[in-house]
Amino acid sequence: MTLADELRIVLDGQWRHVREQSRKELATFGLLADPSLSLDEACDRALDQMKKLVPTGIPAAGFRKEQGGTGDVGMSVTGIEMLAQFDLSLMVKAGVQWGLFGGAIANLGTQRHHDAYITDLINLDLLGCFAMTETGHGSDVQSLETTATYDPGTQEFVINSPTPSSRKDYIGGAARHATSATVFAQLSTGGEGHGVHCFVVPIRGKHGKDLPGVTTSSCGHKGGLRGVDNGRIMFDNVRVPREALLNKYADVAEDGTYSSPIDNVNRRFFTMLGTLVRGRVSVGGSAGAAAQVALSIATRYALKRRQFEAPDGKEVLLMDYRMHQRRLLPLIARSYGLQFAQNELVSTLDRLQSSDDIDEHAQRELEGRAAGLKSVITAHATRAIQECREACGGAGYLTENRLTTLKEDTDVFTTFEGDNHVLLQLLAKELLTAYADEVRGLDPVGMVQFVASTVADVVKERTAAQQLIQRLLDARPGSGESEHDLLDRGNQISLFEEREQHVLETVARRLRRASEDKSKAFDVFNAAQDHVILAGQAHIDRVVLEAFVAAVDRIPEGEAKTLLDDLCDLYALSVIEENKAWFMEHKRLSTERAKAVTSELNQLLAKLRPHALTLIEGFAVPEQTLGAVMLEY
Amino acid sequence: MTLADELRIVLDGQWRHVREQSRKELATFGLLADPSLSLDEACDRALDQMKKLVPTGIPAAGFRKEQGGTGDVGMSVTGIEMLAQFDLSLMVKAGVQWGLFGGAIANLGTQRHHDAYITDLINLDLLGCFAMTETGHGSDVQSLETTATYDPGTQEFVINSPTPSSRKDYIGGAARHATSATVFAQLSTGGEGHGVHCFVVPIRGKHGKDLPGVTTSSCGHKGGLRGVDNGRIMFDNVRVPREALLNKYADVAEDGTYSSPIDNVNRRFFTMLGTLVRGRVSVGGSAGAAAQVALSIATRYALKRRQFEAPDGKEVLLMDYRMHQRRLLPLIARSYGLQFAQNELVSTLDRLQSSDDIDEHAQRELEGRAAGLKSVITAHATRAIQECREACGGAGYLTENRLTTLKEDTDVFTTFEGDNHVLLQLLAKELLTAYADEVRGLDPVGMVQFVASTVADVVKERTAAQQLIQRLLDARPGSGESEHDLLDRGNQISLFEEREQHVLETVARRLRRASEDKSKAFDVFNAAQDHVILAGQAHIDRVVLEAFVAAVDRIPEGEAKTLLDDLCDLYALSVIEENKAWFMEHKRLSTERAKAVTSELNQLLAKLRPHALTLIEGFAVPEQTLGAVMLEY
Repeated sequence: MTLADELRIVLDGQWRHVREQSRKELATFGLLADPSLSLDEACDRALDQMKKLVPTGIPAAGFRKEQGGTGDVGMSVTGIEMLAQFDLSLMVKAGVQWGLFGGAIANLGTQRHHDAYITDLINLDLLGCFAMTETGHGSDVQSLETTATYDPGTQEFVINSPTPSSRKDYIGGAARHATSATVFAQLSTGGEGHGVHCFVVPIRGKHGKDLPGVTTSSCGHKGGLRGVDNGRIMFDNVRVPREALLNKYADVAEDGTYSSPIDNVNRRFFTMLGTLVRGRVSVGGSAGAAAQVALSIATRYALKRRQFEAPDGKEVLLMDYRMHQRRLLPLIARSYGLQFAQNELVSTLDRLQSSDDIDEHAQRELEGRAAGLKSVITAHATRAIQECREACGGAGYLTENRLTTLKEDTDVFTTFEGDNHVLLQLLAKELLTAYADEVRGLDPVGMVQFVASTVADVVKERTAAQQLIQRLLDARPGSGESEHDLLDRGNQISLFEEREQHVLETVARRLRRASEDKSKAFDVFNAAQDHVILAGQAHIDRVVLEAFVAAVDRIPEGEAKTLLDDLCDLYALSVIEENKAWFMEHKRLSTERAKAVTSELNQLLAKLRPHALTLIEGFAVPEQTLGAVMLEY
Repeated sequence: MTLADELRIVLDGQWRHVREQSRKELATFGLLADPSLSLDEACDRALDQMKKLVPTGIPAAGFRKEQGGTGDVGMSVTGIEMLAQFDLSLMVKAGVQWGLFGGAIANLGTQRHHDAYITDLINLDLLGCFAMTETGHGSDVQSLETTATYDPGTQEFVINSPTPSSRKDYIGGAARHATSATVFAQLSTGGEGHGVHCFVVPIRGKHGKDLPGVTTSSCGHKGGLRGVDNGRIMFDNVRVPREALLNKYADVAEDGTYSSPIDNVNRRFFTMLGTLVRGRVSVGGSAGAAAQVALSIATRYALKRRQFEAPDGKEVLLMDYRMHQRRLLPLIARSYGLQFAQNELVSTLDRLQSSDDIDEHAQRELEGRAAGLKSVITAHATRAIQECREACGGAGYLTENRLTTLKEDTDVFTTFEGDNHVLLQLLAKELLTAYADEVRGLDPVGMVQFVASTVADVVKERTAAQQLIQRLLDARPGSGESEHDLLDRGNQISLFEEREQHVLETVARRLRRASEDKSKAFDVFNAAQDHVILAGQAHIDRVVLEAFVAAVDRIPEGEAKTLLDDLCDLYALSVIEENKAWFMEHKRLSTERAKAVTSELNQLLAKLRPHALTLIEGFAVPEQTLGAVMLEY
């Protein structure tokens, strides 16, 4: 087994067999995008490719056996993530069909819906879209305007778009292929509103024409994802039978009586939304995969491209320039860390969604972490792919070298499935209120009243590596010189942890002040918004470090462990370097020690430089999958 | 006159009339890109649009009267920059034809070339391309492999591409429209090489077919700039007459004798290249213009888009969120500062290139500053446009809202006309060696031997605002509380200056150490590469601040001056905040004062928020030019 094999195995995690299958099987499908196709052709091609996926078993894995699937959540999410190595349009279109549309029916519907739809949607005999977002209400789903009014006379719901801003927008599949939609709308019956619920609504007939009352249109050209037929939908009093309501969490009787096992309207809403967490997990995973492809391309290029002469008369490899190392190696290290954290998230998701018991606290922790990790991974992808493009110069700008397509296609990931700032704020809100039940659905102002009296426990609530982390902390050198050893893992963890804790505590203090004067609550919250978001970021930084540390612990003693250990140091030091100012301002680093961070980091770059190829081989993106012409000669 | 008018006038600078003409006239040409065109159609459309520009006088302005132009360098560069508000493909294609191809003939050729080509190329009767870059040699022009061998028997040069890596690559115009090329090649005569020279070489016949011995091909799809027909050229022993050599700086007699007024081969090369500085200036200016368009779109959207409810029951404007202010306002401030610095650069360029005396030191300073400013402005554009895209969420991802097109089209700017890292390094090299003549063309290692014994003078060598800056420095408060006033302009300048000086001095010290042991020189240089690049960056930061300060000084007393003064504070504080860690490590800021930077900055955001619209109106991008559908309703 090579060094790269050992790295690959630890990176692959629990669903390694799915990744291996994908590398072998998907690689034979010819999935790479063709930039010369028209938008319609590109969408049709993506649909054709989806058909090739059906026999792989990945689509069926996302559904329980009793629903017609094979019940392997981890396989489902990992399979979708692997698509991102090939074509992100395909990944998004598959995610919409099986993850969002299928996921809504599976998780919000009951047996009548499962029986009617799941087998067909797995096999693509039924094509669907997920009609949640509205033009006027991007991240604020509770403010949707589309109405679903129950008419007891005909026992139908009337779906309507009352205003231009209630138009469903950016909906993948709506422009061309979807014949049905899971539509989120404000349910009302007997003149009373009950909040957002989801309905299955047919939108197109056999020949692709809009059904009566439905008006779809295309979003046209986008910044990427040419193979996704994003569109808009308006409903003009479209009638669907009472049974179209996905009625797991609420139902309307024939006479119009509303009932739900969850009394509180906010809690009901967030319970329903929470079942859809898989979408966010998939977006994070896919963004991470795309970043790994880009880093694989740029690093391989840097290992063959030479520019400018060194004194020995030979031109210097790009990878041997210090700046080039600084640009690529820390991003590679971060990609490793994020993958480890993502793997833990997928394992948790699989465990929770495969169980019949509902652990509400664990579910909310999962949702918070999925939100935060999605935000951090997609931001990383945007930054890493941009850096890779620039690191390959003019060649990086040619579509034949794939980096621009990765850039274009992933660009929207920072704002879809929840805007990154909103998501980090959501995570911070959960941490700050210690997941207080009352807080769900409250606006920032309502939330401040529930800020926990102490947030210490939140930090203590560790990742899977709890005992290992405590051991490393306990093993920190005592006072004296080595106390300042920046390469001591315990010291690194302690710096990350102190930052998280301090940021959380100080923002909690600021917000608690606001709860004393409600009239100023919004202003106080708003003035602290950057601070709140930093709290979410600092939390995820620590979660990622702990996942990295746990991975280093799992790998057997030997050369690969040493390498991964150094890479973990690089991740830790690059996060510390980026936040140096914070550590100095808060007396966690002296100015001298802060300077040492940069020189230690530079030394790590020199140490890791000879392993650059091994490190990206660990990502195990097959060379033909990279599809970059510039690597061929 | 409105506040915005006052800002516009100070931003417009010396060539205000050109900007005003462009806003009125170009706006009627319907220049916005059409994403539905095929690549060939998009290129043809850009050419058609260029034809509309001929009567505006902008193309002719770039050439001297005696050459057939009207001799207004500033108008020429400003006119090209204004195109960037509409369509960057057009800007690049125009820049290639009139700036690069035309510029090479005008500046490297003599009267026989001027008479033969200039009028035709201004009027587009002759379409050209600029064949410098080769596949194997991006930023390292001196290593080009294409050969131009003189044959005294026929009095011709033989142009040849001896290797795959000598292929001319990414050449705008080469794929489709150009019929001639200015080709950079290694001149040799009588068996002796004389370095890179430029030749006019016909490449296509009347019907668009490659001429014998010439093979062109297309670079295909790119990350943007769909209207530019980038291509590749290979020469198979193509013969051109002796007179095809652009012979201002070197000539070959009929018998093959080589002669040049400049003996030193490096100096000759850099003198020739230096005359082409206008390209770099145009790229910087255009990137700045594109960033202003994006900021105008995102800010206008933030002033109408509402998301999530405030306690008063109304949804909150995006622009009222603290994070949104932090994302957009500092970028607006920086755009102002960069425009002021760019305006000074264009004035200097105009002055130097309109004069018949050659001020070699001033020319080199111009080249260094053009390199650094191009790098900083294009990096700013990439970052700002990305932030704008994300700040507009899903709507920002739709091509109809223009941000993605701006992003795609400007993306290559960070690496073309010189990679940004290479350019900052070039600037730093000039600063570190105090423009020592021997240094031009030396590799990093050769350079270290010329590192100036003191770099203090470089910092003292001020921008146009010399006296004003000194006055502000002298007026700094003495010791005591107010010494730490972060809003004192003198204190700000002093922080920027100390950073520049200290970074330069310490990197000089590191490099001087290397000159003692030549065998280690490359390693020492390479280990300091990030430090060297920081020196270039710190220099430009200071240049931009001084340009901003001078602009504030120029504007008459009143509300607009106060506003611009606050905006200058925001620019200064945001640069200081980004480099907080450096200032603390080097004891220029105490940890307490560093914390105050952030709170002062946040206060400035609140102060400037009510003026957000006015600030972007100062950019004066006409609303119809923004072309973003989401702003219409």
